[in-house]
Amino acid sequence: MGGSSNRVESFPDALDLESASPVEKSPSTPQPLEIHKVPLPQKKTTFQSLKQRLSEVFFPDDPLHQFKNQPLLKKLILGLQYFFPIFHWGSEYSLQLLKSDAVSGLTIASLAIPQGISYAKLANLPPIIGLYSSFVPPLIYSVLGSSRDLAVGPVSIASLVMGSMLREMVSPDHQPMLYLQLAFTSTFFAGVFQASLGFLRLGFIVDFLSKPTLVGFMGGAAVIVSLQQLKGLLGIVHFTTKMGFIPVMVSVFEHRKEWAWQTILMGTSFLVFLLITRHISMRKPKLFWVSAAAPLASVILSTTISFIVKAQYHGISVIGHLQKGVNPPSVNMLFFQGSFLGLAIKTGIVTGILALTEGIAVGRTFASLKNYQIDGNKEMMAIGIMNMAGSCASCYVTTGSFSRSAVNYNAGSKTAVSNIVMASAVLITMLFLMPLFYHTPNVILSAIIITAVIGLIDFRGAARLWKVDKLDFLACVSAFFGVLFISVQMGLAIAVGISMLKILIHVTRPNTVIKGIIPGTQNYRNIGHYREAMRVPSVLILGIESPIYFANSMYLQERILRWVREEEEWALKMNQSSIKCVVLDMGAVTSIDTSGMDALTELKKALDKRSLEFVLANPVGNVLEKLSQSETLEKLGSDRIYMTVGEAVSAVSSTYKVQV
Amino acid sequence: MGGSSNRVESFPDALDLESASPVEKSPSTPQPLEIHKVPLPQKKTTFQSLKQRLSEVFFPDDPLHQFKNQPLLKKLILGLQYFFPIFHWGSEYSLQLLKSDAVSGLTIASLAIPQGISYAKLANLPPIIGLYSSFVPPLIYSVLGSSRDLAVGPVSIASLVMGSMLREMVSPDHQPMLYLQLAFTSTFFAGVFQASLGFLRLGFIVDFLSKPTLVGFMGGAAVIVSLQQLKGLLGIVHFTTKMGFIPVMVSVFEHRKEWAWQTILMGTSFLVFLLITRHISMRKPKLFWVSAAAPLASVILSTTISFIVKAQYHGISVIGHLQKGVNPPSVNMLFFQGSFLGLAIKTGIVTGILALTEGIAVGRTFASLKNYQIDGNKEMMAIGIMNMAGSCASCYVTTGSFSRSAVNYNAGSKTAVSNIVMASAVLITMLFLMPLFYHTPNVILSAIIITAVIGLIDFRGAARLWKVDKLDFLACVSAFFGVLFISVQMGLAIAVGISMLKILIHVTRPNTVIKGIIPGTQNYRNIGHYREAMRVPSVLILGIESPIYFANSMYLQERILRWVREEEEWALKMNQSSIKCVVLDMGAVTSIDTSGMDALTELKKALDKRSLEFVLANPVGNVLEKLSQSETLEKLGSDRIYMTVGEAVSAVSSTYKVQV
Repeated sequence: MGGSSNRVESFPDALDLESASPVEKSPSTPQPLEIHKVPLPQKKTTFQSLKQRLSEVFFPDDPLHQFKNQPLLKKLILGLQYFFPIFHWGSEYSLQLLKSDAVSGLTIASLAIPQGISYAKLANLPPIIGLYSSFVPPLIYSVLGSSRDLAVGPVSIASLVMGSMLREMVSPDHQPMLYLQLAFTSTFFAGVFQASLGFLRLGFIVDFLSKPTLVGFMGGAAVIVSLQQLKGLLGIVHFTTKMGFIPVMVSVFEHRKEWAWQTILMGTSFLVFLLITRHISMRKPKLFWVSAAAPLASVILSTTISFIVKAQYHGISVIGHLQKGVNPPSVNMLFFQGSFLGLAIKTGIVTGILALTEGIAVGRTFASLKNYQIDGNKEMMAIGIMNMAGSCASCYVTTGSFSRSAVNYNAGSKTAVSNIVMASAVLITMLFLMPLFYHTPNVILSAIIITAVIGLIDFRGAARLWKVDKLDFLACVSAFFGVLFISVQMGLAIAVGISMLKILIHVTRPNTVIKGIIPGTQNYRNIGHYREAMRVPSVLILGIESPIYFANSMYLQERILRWVREEEEWALKMNQSSIKCVVLDMGAVTSIDTSGMDALTELKKALDKRSLEFVLANPVGNVLEKLSQSETLEKLGSDRIYMTVGEAVSAVSSTYKVQV
Repeated sequence: MGGSSNRVESFPDALDLESASPVEKSPSTPQPLEIHKVPLPQKKTTFQSLKQRLSEVFFPDDPLHQFKNQPLLKKLILGLQYFFPIFHWGSEYSLQLLKSDAVSGLTIASLAIPQGISYAKLANLPPIIGLYSSFVPPLIYSVLGSSRDLAVGPVSIASLVMGSMLREMVSPDHQPMLYLQLAFTSTFFAGVFQASLGFLRLGFIVDFLSKPTLVGFMGGAAVIVSLQQLKGLLGIVHFTTKMGFIPVMVSVFEHRKEWAWQTILMGTSFLVFLLITRHISMRKPKLFWVSAAAPLASVILSTTISFIVKAQYHGISVIGHLQKGVNPPSVNMLFFQGSFLGLAIKTGIVTGILALTEGIAVGRTFASLKNYQIDGNKEMMAIGIMNMAGSCASCYVTTGSFSRSAVNYNAGSKTAVSNIVMASAVLITMLFLMPLFYHTPNVILSAIIITAVIGLIDFRGAARLWKVDKLDFLACVSAFFGVLFISVQMGLAIAVGISMLKILIHVTRPNTVIKGIIPGTQNYRNIGHYREAMRVPSVLILGIESPIYFANSMYLQERILRWVREEEEWALKMNQSSIKCVVLDMGAVTSIDTSGMDALTELKKALDKRSLEFVLANPVGNVLEKLSQSETLEKLGSDRIYMTVGEAVSAVSSTYKVQV
């Protein structure tokens, strides 16, 4: 790091400034700007530059900095704390903290139990799996995880995607056992994928899902999920297994006869109740517990009702028997060969990355709210290990849930202990309270899911996109409709594709701007931006606002020649002195490749043929380095490089003084 | 364009410079730099900005500029000349030009005939197809094409790829008819693809094959092609149909018994002869005709020999009977349904884009040598139409050939008439001279192919890559080995993939540099680059050298916070005054998206928590526009934006004067 480099003693205040402007030295005789030579950056060996490059790519956050020059014992302790954050906060854990953690833990438990059961159904899995998945993973995370607010468990998006991907090949109704095996195996691979991403420091891969496309994708998924709930809400028995908007709608109206008014009545009334409580808590974050308690409350209430009125005999389907007990081991159900391995891996990777995206985003959000850092790559390892372990204990893919973490945060959670509390609550439920769910109507679960996912539809975000960046909005909308009308995976693919395309388009068609001098300064700026900027006669100053790559070198070459042509035409029309020199401001050209350098050489040739000067201003270090390495510098003329546009202009202008 | 904007009357010479530095006005009282406000760019409507954006993406070269304010008749003529360049140069065509065109035309004909036959075999097609393809397409191109030096006909790479792709599904030996239909159909689709790329102004797609990867791919393909020729050179009868390095080598040594010494003798002697002539012409471009005439010469010579010694009875295989006559129509052989349609389209697209890449590259090369412009998109339309028409006249995919165009250029071709001359020579051959090829030994064709493709192996280019850019070299090498050991298509896929990846990596991990003031100026530069640059105490000046995107926003946010942390640690160690302000030089941040703006806001928050000032310097127009649209500007504080780093520093420093 540059810390060791030399420094000026005081601020470059007015006095410095005066001595700064070189003309100062002899105010009497006007003279052009003093020219500073542009040095080559210190020579680096291939190894050095490669090392630096790699460490930037893989260790941008320099995770080991805290270990630097520490005694060995300290190093060991730090290492332990690094891999098991629980040792970090565990040491100074107090009863005070436990109190608030207990409160928040119980709060999210009341949310986790009904949601767990519901999301499991979303993934076409038996409800109990949802509870299993709310027990083991949180415990593991509380040891490995570095976020203090993450509430771990099954989440809607990942459940939906896993459900839809597996269902395409295997029917959960006809081959329940195989389906279960697939679910656990893909969970295992999801974990492996997540952990290795973290371990290989490839965390940045999740950043490739741009926010706009995520908004669209999440919104679309939320709608899909809600539509699926029409089955429960209307009490339809024979429902399509498809996910798309159209097939679902068709099947809803085809089975109009199966609609059961009792179910509809119960469902809608509870849905309204839940939505109201949600609304209240959103208005007054203090009242978070209203929406947090509502789902459990409505489960209890509805169960009691259906118990009293014997709902199942009035066309209201109930969950039915759930066996007691803690997670049975499921290692024996994982498979690593066979025709379905491919599907399992694919599903694992897709759900894995979605789970990561949500988990990391949630973690970062609340970390920045409480002003502590979380190491993305470490989080990924934690989540990955948690899922690998989970897949051996009858859990399907889990991560940090947006909704529950928010509740956890509002309920005043201090550490990951809240997860432990929640897990214990779930454990008790699994051990003793399962029979109570016998009479719970499925319609309630549907209502709970809808209330949970409705928050994923982010109208405000979409509106902001429309306002700020039409392209982003387009990406968002296409992802949304992709999910809705084609398929969830397709929507995701579209989302990623558009994100990539956006980068590429920007790289292929960079800006080139004409620059003029700001009167009373030595600064040259885009005349399209600064109205006061004045163009310098006979000199065309172009700013290239992008690296020069194979992907845009040809474009830039032609575009610059077009600028020149237009300039000359204009000068002719205005019978102004036509241009004699082209200055390229390379300040924003942050890198260049072989094609780019060829383009510059070509440009030089073309301008020579027109007998136009061609000079570069303010090239950055590595660009200059490459230019010299490839002998492009000689071709351009190494005396043709200036530190600033001002110096370039004053240099060429003075030469013209002689000529003209 | 900015031509209409205001200009200074004279150069900003020393006088301006003096008045320039604001402190001038009252040299007695030192005062901080005068602050210029950073204006928002002129408001544009969505439609305007969209229009501008699209015209930049699709019409960067402003192809219609010549039509602007011209009388209608002139417009018509120009239009005619635009679509049929022949009307452009045809009007002033002279006997003088014809003479040199005739010479060059005949020269390339002597090359085109043997090469045509050879390349056809490379694509597993009957030799005659090669001649057909050297007749019709050149005629069409001479009417539509805008390059004066392109020599049109079959080329090695495209032939190889078509051959290998089609062979995977259909055996040319067992289903010759179907294979032929496939070849023509894919040629048709290649043409459609090429023409539509040009018509839709998507020409820049060919730029996505970066030069390094092309060097690698071409080299690999050349090796593959040469290996295939071992069949002919060694006179092997039962040869593998595979393309890869290993299977070919295996099959060569498995069939050691089939090696025929007569063939080997003849083949190697002629190969040596051809390579020598090639070497001569490369040394002395004046002697281009030596290598140009050599192939035909060796065909004639070898044919005579094999006729005299009755070669076919001494284990030297000969071409055998070729029927006379011009291209038969083949429209009836195109098919647009059936199970092979997919293969035809795929092959068409791949060979089409390869043909384009070569054709456009050749065209541009010689255009820049003779200093005339070529409109890439128009060329694509020309090549596309030529291939569509060709596919209906028993031609397979053709384009501008590197080797023949070079000869054409050296032979002094002036216009596309040289293509017409060549075509006529081919026509005469097809009508009268076919029987003469009966005794031509296949081994000669192999020798000719090897000599032709050997030039595609560009060691010097690869060496340059290694010297200038290790990553580019890596891309090159992987494409090379991909072609050699996996498959031609795979090699191509790798080439494209790496090219993309390179862009993405650069976008994901942009440079951030610490800047210092250059003594005696108001310029701030990277202290890693300019050794004389001095850091300003208590102010951390960071230059962001990339757009801020979803793909790098998280990285930049964390990286900047790391810079701050390291600064503070350093200051602590040196017990220097720790930093009070962070200045982001946004000069190279050429665009920003929603995630990027959120990152800035987050950064602001984080720095506020550390009670550090956070100011931006020199944001470009569209970035500033977006910041203000999204209210990010308010969050950052709109008075926190300065036009230059210098002004930012002097502003914050003066405030600190008060505080400290």
